[in-house]
Parts: sequence; structure tokens; C-alpha cells
Amino acid sequence: MTVAAVDPRRTAELGRRLRVDVVRAAAAAGSGHPTSSMSAADLMAVLLGGHLRYDVDRPDHPGADRLVLSKGHASPLLYAALKAAGAIDDEELLTFRKEGSRLEGHPTPMLPWVDVATGSLGQGPAIGVGMALAGKRLAHLPYRVWVLCGDSELAEGAVWEAFEHAGYEHLANLTVIVDVNRLGQRGPTRHGWDLDAYARRARAFGWHTVEVDGHDTAAVEAAYTAAEEVTDRPTAVLARTVKGSGVAAVANREGMHGKPLPDPDAAIAELGGTGDEVRVELPAPPPAADPPRGSASHPALPLYDAGDEVSTRDAYGQALAALGAVRPDVVALDGEVGDSTRTELFAKEHPERYFECYIAEQQLVAAAVGMQACGWTPFAATFAAFLTRAHDFVRMAAVSRASLNLVGSHAGVAIGEDGPSQMGLEDLAMFRAVHGSTVLHPCDANQAARLVAAMAADDLTGVRYLRTMRGARPVLYGPDEDFPIGGSRLLRAAAGDDVTIAAAGATVHEALAAADLLAAAGVGARVLDLYSVKPVDAAAVRAAAEQTGRVLTVEDHRPEGGLGDAVAEVFADGRPVPRLARLAVRTMPGSATETQQLAAAGIDAAAITAAARDLVAADRARTA
Amino acid sequence: MTVAAVDPRRTAELGRRLRVDVVRAAAAAGSGHPTSSMSAADLMAVLLGGHLRYDVDRPDHPGADRLVLSKGHASPLLYAALKAAGAIDDEELLTFRKEGSRLEGHPTPMLPWVDVATGSLGQGPAIGVGMALAGKRLAHLPYRVWVLCGDSELAEGAVWEAFEHAGYEHLANLTVIVDVNRLGQRGPTRHGWDLDAYARRARAFGWHTVEVDGHDTAAVEAAYTAAEEVTDRPTAVLARTVKGSGVAAVANREGMHGKPLPDPDAAIAELGGTGDEVRVELPAPPPAADPPRGSASHPALPLYDAGDEVSTRDAYGQALAALGAVRPDVVALDGEVGDSTRTELFAKEHPERYFECYIAEQQLVAAAVGMQACGWTPFAATFAAFLTRAHDFVRMAAVSRASLNLVGSHAGVAIGEDGPSQMGLEDLAMFRAVHGSTVLHPCDANQAARLVAAMAADDLTGVRYLRTMRGARPVLYGPDEDFPIGGSRLLRAAAGDDVTIAAAGATVHEALAAADLLAAAGVGARVLDLYSVKPVDAAAVRAAAEQTGRVLTVEDHRPEGGLGDAVAEVFADGRPVPRLARLAVRTMPGSATETQQLAAAGIDAAAITAAARDLVAADRARTA
Repeated sequence: MTVAAVDPRRTAELGRRLRVDVVRAAAAAGSGHPTSSMSAADLMAVLLGGHLRYDVDRPDHPGADRLVLSKGHASPLLYAALKAAGAIDDEELLTFRKEGSRLEGHPTPMLPWVDVATGSLGQGPAIGVGMALAGKRLAHLPYRVWVLCGDSELAEGAVWEAFEHAGYEHLANLTVIVDVNRLGQRGPTRHGWDLDAYARRARAFGWHTVEVDGHDTAAVEAAYTAAEEVTDRPTAVLARTVKGSGVAAVANREGMHGKPLPDPDAAIAELGGTGDEVRVELPAPPPAADPPRGSASHPALPLYDAGDEVSTRDAYGQALAALGAVRPDVVALDGEVGDSTRTELFAKEHPERYFECYIAEQQLVAAAVGMQACGWTPFAATFAAFLTRAHDFVRMAAVSRASLNLVGSHAGVAIGEDGPSQMGLEDLAMFRAVHGSTVLHPCDANQAARLVAAMAADDLTGVRYLRTMRGARPVLYGPDEDFPIGGSRLLRAAAGDDVTIAAAGATVHEALAAADLLAAAGVGARVLDLYSVKPVDAAAVRAAAEQTGRVLTVEDHRPEGGLGDAVAEVFADGRPVPRLARLAVRTMPGSATETQQLAAAGIDAAAITAAARDLVAADRARTA
Repeated sequence: MTVAAVDPRRTAELGRRLRVDVVRAAAAAGSGHPTSSMSAADLMAVLLGGHLRYDVDRPDHPGADRLVLSKGHASPLLYAALKAAGAIDDEELLTFRKEGSRLEGHPTPMLPWVDVATGSLGQGPAIGVGMALAGKRLAHLPYRVWVLCGDSELAEGAVWEAFEHAGYEHLANLTVIVDVNRLGQRGPTRHGWDLDAYARRARAFGWHTVEVDGHDTAAVEAAYTAAEEVTDRPTAVLARTVKGSGVAAVANREGMHGKPLPDPDAAIAELGGTGDEVRVELPAPPPAADPPRGSASHPALPLYDAGDEVSTRDAYGQALAALGAVRPDVVALDGEVGDSTRTELFAKEHPERYFECYIAEQQLVAAAVGMQACGWTPFAATFAAFLTRAHDFVRMAAVSRASLNLVGSHAGVAIGEDGPSQMGLEDLAMFRAVHGSTVLHPCDANQAARLVAAMAADDLTGVRYLRTMRGARPVLYGPDEDFPIGGSRLLRAAAGDDVTIAAAGATVHEALAAADLLAAAGVGARVLDLYSVKPVDAAAVRAAAEQTGRVLTVEDHRPEGGLGDAVAEVFADGRPVPRLARLAVRTMPGSATETQQLAAAGIDAAAITAAARDLVAADRARTA
């Protein structure tokens, strides 16, 4: 049979059938979250039965509605729905959670019908905001974003960042459906079935709300229709549901989270049996154009003269503005510090593609994730230190196979007086550990500008991170030099050098000064600018190590996880290893000037000079 | 003159004088945030003028009110207040933001009157919840927690996690004062002076609200009194203020954020001049006992028999429950996954010291930070993956010199079918990069239990992180063995060993199996259990390296920032380095069984065996 739209009896039958498949998939897997899926089965059935405009044969249709399963553990429900819509077959459904299956424990874009991975709760609404902003303000398309949430996850602050943002932006194209089944993983939620507790909160943030019995398909139908008819604000559909609904052995019972049903055959019988396959025809999305792509012409990047003092954050803002002029897909977001990060330079040139996210870094990154899922190329910036606030979103962006650019300014102790709360000192560790990431830390304005353009290259995937500095530094490179991702630059080298100083960002300038001091003391030091921290230029590091026998790394970052580790990893290849030493920020800084900070942290030219001399002398003494 | 309590004219005079000192401090520093301080000066003056029960000579008084300056950039206001209260003198005030000064750009506990560092916005309310919970539910003391917020920071989701938690717990001892000056860093806030926008949100979360003119000291006095009189819910005082109030050149003007006043002398004159010093006498806190301290007796830790299969998360829960029986200062918190992390075992034994934080990891960590500031010893647990949600709070906990224990369960790909969203694969990198942190990853139940006890030792400082595993593993160690922090265990060693396999957690078991396979192939492998990832046992690593010449690290974690980096850092000391190789999770996992996951990630016994053989063979070939 085929389910026609907006017939409550038929959507109820679809809901029943989705439950059957949920039970079957979890039984086949021997694990999974069937009860959390069953509570939302009718909510999903009504969505499929006439509201979700989607073409399973063309999942990247730009005009299609977006569905984000924020309660990612209810993946069996999504997979059952995909089967009902004809996207997958029954055989694949029963591969759930098995090695090699696309039907993972929590949904990921390994399935083409999944835009973003979920499973870390409370992320769906925030990502949905990004998708809805893209529809309303960038693509000007009438698609709707549907986010299916659990009730437990509304405790996450990221959900309220999203409600705030969506309410303020009047995102009428965003609907959050909350499956209020009153039971979390380990027991009852804070608010149980008090739908009004959630509704009060949502309304306070400017949302329209509808409270509904989530198993009354006619009422759910009316609720979705109401959401579609509201034109000035987003809607939260708060649905009272029963966890494990339809099977008495598990329905509304504690201790049944995340387990297959105890007797699946009895449960299927209780649900009315498998019966005929149910196939649903989704309404087709309206015709729509793909998002714009970049022109082939190169951006007119800013050019800086050697010796001028320019900060890399200035270069970022200027380069991004230039990039935006030739790349209509490039958008910028900032966390209310655009005057500091210099995103404001883009905002002034391209206000229609700038998104102010205020002080809500999770929403900042989530919006970027949502926009890239809709075909845009986002750059999202705040202080490097504050990107830690969004670490879980960055981690999940990698699981989502998202392609986006993040920019952290105010790197390291070099920011000066503001003190440690504002210093990005752990950001390299955070971003290096993200799967598939690219981590860039330019020392120079021309380098920074080139890297901004490189970050937007079509062939780049994953999370790209650019670390910029507050303070101005002399321009070292010419405006026409190339800085490929994965490359490095040897700034100083001579035959017979005694030691390699590997640096990035501020410490490149300190290393150059140290090399002068060392030369005066009879020590030959080469200076390697590792602006590409990940992937690091292993060949250049290895070559410098072989030629000098000693490598000193120096970074304005904690000793763990940053440049020193990146260089050390080059030598984890079983081949001979040079003598290594490492300078990094091992103290807890206070307030001081930039010069004082670099000295106190032991990463300035004097400290590098001393460490390089020690490294050379100790090694010579040993081999003498 | 001395300001008496509750006289609005006198508190207005104090507010004026605080502004003068704010202007002077920022002028002396040449930087800082005077305008953000001036908007809140009257709010602070009224607080000092009769409400804040505090003894500056005894900042650790257990009965004293707590004041958290959530808008940490308004530090000059706090320092001016400390001067007015007699805590610091004028000479010190003028050291603001200078090297070596305790008066940092943002407040830190380098000043004894500061309990927690601020400057990453939106953290104060969440930490205040922890302090208020400690007062209400642990210490049973009538102290009040006052949190002074900016309006911009209310965009942070962490604030709404706090409002949710405090409202639900009816924390009438918590007052959040919001300095609504309508201007953020780069321009107007979302809601400007719409106090009711904030009030609606706070009331929806169960708070009492008072809207007030923040420069009418009589009205502010009445608002604070109202907050003190509400007994069933927390209060938000929403105060309309003027940024830079009192000085026309900056008052309510954009572009004046984070800058000293253009003409400080004129500003001081406009404010009425310096005049006499103003000294305020704070009301004394009521007598109160210190929090309980641990008894000298050792906990009756659980004991596990060699060969039994026990998970380290089970050992954590059981050991923590045992620890709680002898340590009344130990408290536990969990993010609604206590059945998974096993915190539930503590909760059952010591319900009065258990705090359910629901799915709100920022609030989870912040509550622990607040509790430790009040003298308690918290253990806060969730999945390792989800602690990334609280990264910024962990980072700031280090700046706060906080002493607390965090526990992350479900480490690595070994969790099996649930997939990458639930896998802690970046947690070692995150926690190793935290200044002063301790990072522990036991492989065995007896080891885990001992380490739980060690984490609560009185002489330990900083953030301690315990990484536990989902799956059961054979018990390797006897119940009476000691596992000091910073130690390691050599599980297998013989003279003439060819290679050292350094592992932790699940990979220790794989390494032991690999050592058997290698022995059969004529390769002698020693197995080093580096359960203390930070500090790592450098002496043992160095000794093993010198004896075997080759070190292979293997970890259930990303290649960056974890065990491989910890071992590499040992060799960044200028001395000779062995041949190194590294196994880690370089793929994006899907769903699969535990065994399949370890194999697919290339960190199981077979992969270790192959890598060790390659390392030995390549090196032998080179030296042959």
C-alpha cells in the first residue's frame, strides 16, 4: 500500500509499521534504541505523510526540506522511515549497527539522506538554525527545516542558543518537534510530561508553540500545518508521547533505554504484525537553483610590503572580504567580536552574507555546519580561546564530514595584558586531534592572506582552522609567494647549520631574532616556518633534521598537542630521530606586555637562543 | 568616610567613587574596560553597602557570601571595590594589568578574594549554581551567591543551563544581577534595554525577576532586598544601566568598549573628583563551620581477583562509593548517564552528596568548579566524548586554579556499535593540554580503584581526569598493588628485548596479546602500562627505550595529543632518541563490534604485532 498525504488513519498505520521495523532492526542488531524511536514514530509518520518535501533520488536537491534527527539515538526510526520512503530496502535495514553498514548506531552522512551526524544531544536545533538561515537569507528558497528532538536534550544550553538565535531572526522556516516521552537514559526527565514547562521557555525566546498528543496523528497533522502557516517566527511542536509506545512490555517503563525489546516477535505481533510493506510517497520539493559557486577568477588578495607591520588578523579580514567578492558561496559568521577578529571587514563589504551570532560559540559553529550542509562555504571566527566552547560541535562536524573554516584570533600569550582567559593556548591541540582537520598558523600577513584563499579551495575537505594573532608583525614574505597547505618555508639556512628552529606564528619572528644571536655566538641555526601545523611538512622537517641533527620547536601554545607534537610525530616512523628539544608555554600567564609575556613564557628570542645553545652544546659534549 | 549600609545617598557616593577608581586604574594601565565597569558601579556599590556579608581578612570564611564577577572584563570595578573594602590599597590598584600584579586584566584567584577566574563570558551563573548547591544541599549554610553578569553574555547557552538548573533546584540563595548596558563589544546587543525580554526568559525557567534602574541606588537596594526575601526560587535583578555612566564623552556610546577613557583627568573631574577615600564596612558573615575533611582512614576500596572480567567504569563507581564512605567532602555529579558511567553506585550510597545535572555538560563541570571553590571534592562524570562540550569550562578551571576530578567513560573505538559520536577519541588531547592537569587511563579494575582514591589526595592540585572504558577486561593486577600518579607498570620484560610497546587502557590488553605473538616469532617485546598519561613516567619510558632501542606506542585515541605525543615529549630533552612508531585511530569509525573496531582502527594485537615486527626489522636492516 502507499500512504497518501494528510490522512490520519493512514499515517497512524505508517507509524505502526515504522515501529515494527524499529523493533526488527534493533532485534537484528542486538542493540540500539528502539523505545526512543517508538515514541516518535507517529511524529515521523505524519512528517512523511505529506509535510516533508523531499526526493530520495536526489538528496542534494537545493529546494528540499531538511530533516535533522537531533535525537540521533533514535536512528532505527530514521532508517525505518528511509525504508518506507524507498531509499533503502529491508535487507539493508537489517544491517543496522553491523560492521560496514551505512546504518550506524547514530546517523552519519555515510547515508546520502543524512546531512549532518547526530548523537551528541542538543545539536540539532543549532544546526537547523544554520540551515534555516541559509534558506531565508542566502538561497531565498522556501524549504523548511524540521528538527526532531528528544525532551532530555533540551537541558543543553546549545538548544537555547538556537532558540534565541532563531527567535531573533524570525526563522519561520524552522520547526522543532520535541518528542516528550518523559524518560531519559537513566530515569525521568526534569519536567516529565509538563509540556507547558517547555512551551513557556520556547515562547519566552520568541517561538510559536503547539502542544499536542504525539500519538494522535490528526492532532500532529494539525500541529505541523500550523507550523507551516506561521510566517513570523519558528515553531516548537511539543508532543506528549510514550517511550516504547505500542508494546506494553516496554511502554513508559524505566530501565528500557538503549536496549532491544525483550521479545521482539511478541512485540511485532502486539503491534499488529509485519503485514504488507508500507511505502510512502513524499511530496516533491519545488524547483530550485543550486547555491552559487565560486568564479574561476582569483580574488584580489591584499598585498603587503615586506617590513610593514601588519597583524595576521587584519590580513584575515581583508583577504576574506576580497575572497567574498569573487566567491558568492563564501559566507562569514562571528561571535560578537568581529571588530577584534576583523570579520567586520567582510561584514562591511558583504553584509548580506554576514551573520552575527553574538556571544554563543556553539551556535556560531553549528550555524556554519548547517550552512555548509546546504552548499555554502562558511568562515566562522572568534577568539581562539573561545572556540573551545564549541569543541563538541567541531568534533561532531568531523563525524558529519563537514567542510568548513574556523578562525581563532588572539593566539597565545602574545596577546599581552588581557591575561590567560583570553589567550588561545590549547587550540592547536583541540584542532589537531579533529579527524581530517587542517591547522594553519601564519606568521605574516601575505602568508595569512594566501592561506585564507587556500582554505576555500573546492578540493579541500574537513574542518580547516586558521590561527591568527592580535599583534602586528613585520611582513616577511613577498605578496606573490605561494603557501600550499602542507608546506613550509625555510627562512634561514646555511650549509653546516647546527640546529633547526621550527616555529609558527609569533615564534617565527622570535626564532629569526634568535638565529641572529646564535650566529653571533658561532652557532648556525636554520629557521623553519611550519605555517601548516597539520598536515605538517614532514619532508622538510625530516630534511632539516638530517642536515642539522638537532631540532628545537618553539610555540606560543601549551607543550601538549601543538607544534612540538606535530614535529615529534614526523619522527614516529621508525627511522633515526634527531636530538629534539621543545619550548612552549609551561606557566600560567598573568597580565603583562607582549614582550614581557613572551619572555616570561620562555618562548622569546633570548629563550630560544639559550635552548638552542644548550641543545647543541649538550649534544656536542656527548659526542665529543 | 565610611559608608553605612542601606543609605541610597551613601551608596550613590560609593558608586561615584568606584567609577573614579575605575577610570584611574584603566588610565594607569593604558588598557582595560572602564566603561563596562562604570555601568555596574552603582550595582556594586549597593551590594557592598549592606548586602554582601564578607570578611576581607578571611576570604575563605565558610559562611561568607560569594561574589562572582561573570563579566570578568569589568575587573577594574572589582578591584575598586576591593580597595573600598580595605582589601587592597591605592598603590596596588594602580598596578592593574602590569606584569607581576595580582590585578590581572580579568580576575583570577591570584587575588585571595576571587574564588574563580572569569573572562570567558557566560560562566558565572553556572559556577554560581555550584556554589549555591553547596550552600543549600551540602553545607546547609545561609550564605548567598551573587553573580554580576553583563547582558551580552546571556546569549551563551551555559547561562540557560544554569537558569534551568537553579530554577529546578529552587536555589533561592542565588542572585544573578544583570548589568543591562545595551552595548556589547562591537555594538548593540540583541535586546538593547528591553529588560522584559530577559525577564520573560528568566521567569520561564522558574526565576523571580526584578527590573530596575541600575543607577537608582534606592531602587537597587530594594531589588536586592527583594531577592533576599524570596525563599522559593533564585532571583534575577535586571538593571537598566548606561555603559560608561557618569562621563558624557563615553556614556552610552558605541566604540568605547575595552579602552581607557580619552581624557581621564576630565572624566574624574566630571565624576566629582577624587575627594576623600571612601571606605566601606561589609557586614560580617555569620559563624559557620568549615566543610568536612576526609578522615585519615583508608577507603575500603573494592578488590578484584586476577582474571575476572571487570570494566574500569564499574571499578570507578564502586571505588567512588567506597571513597565517599570515609571522605565526607567527596561529592559526585553526573550528566544524566550515571547508569553508564557508574556514578549511580555513589548516588545510591550517598544520595545527599549526589547531584544530577541532566544533559548539560557545561553546567556539570561548572557546578564542580563552584563546589570545589567552597571546599568540597567533586567528581563529575559523563562520556569522555561529551566532556568536549565543557572544554572552555575545563580550560577556565585551570585559570581558576581549581582542584577537581573529571571522569570520562566510553573511551575510544572499543565502545563498539554506538559509533563515533559516542567515542572519546579526542579527550586525552583536550585534557593533556590543560595547564597543571593530571590524566589517568587505567587498564584494570584494581588500578582504576586505586587511582580514584589517589585523585582525591589532599596534596593534589589542578584538574584530574580519569578515562574509563565501557567493556570488561581481565583483571591484571593484584588488589594490593600501588599505582602512584606519575608512575607506570612494566607488565612484561626480559633482557635483550627488541622493542617496548607502550600502551594504556584497552591497548594494554592488546599489547600483552601482541607480545605473545611476537615472542612466538622470535621478537622480544616488553609491555609498558602508562596508566599515568600526564605526568608520564619519563624515567621508565627512557629506561625502556634505552634497553630496547625501539618504542611503539599504541592508543585508542586520535594520533594527535594523546599517548604517542606524551611519550614523544619524553624524548624532547636533547638526549638520544630511540626508534619510534605510533599506532592510533586514524580512521573515522562506523558501527561494529568491539573486536572489529580495534582491528579496523589498527590498534589490536595483530596490528601491534605487525607494527612491532616492522619497527624491529627496518631498524635491524638499517643497522645491519
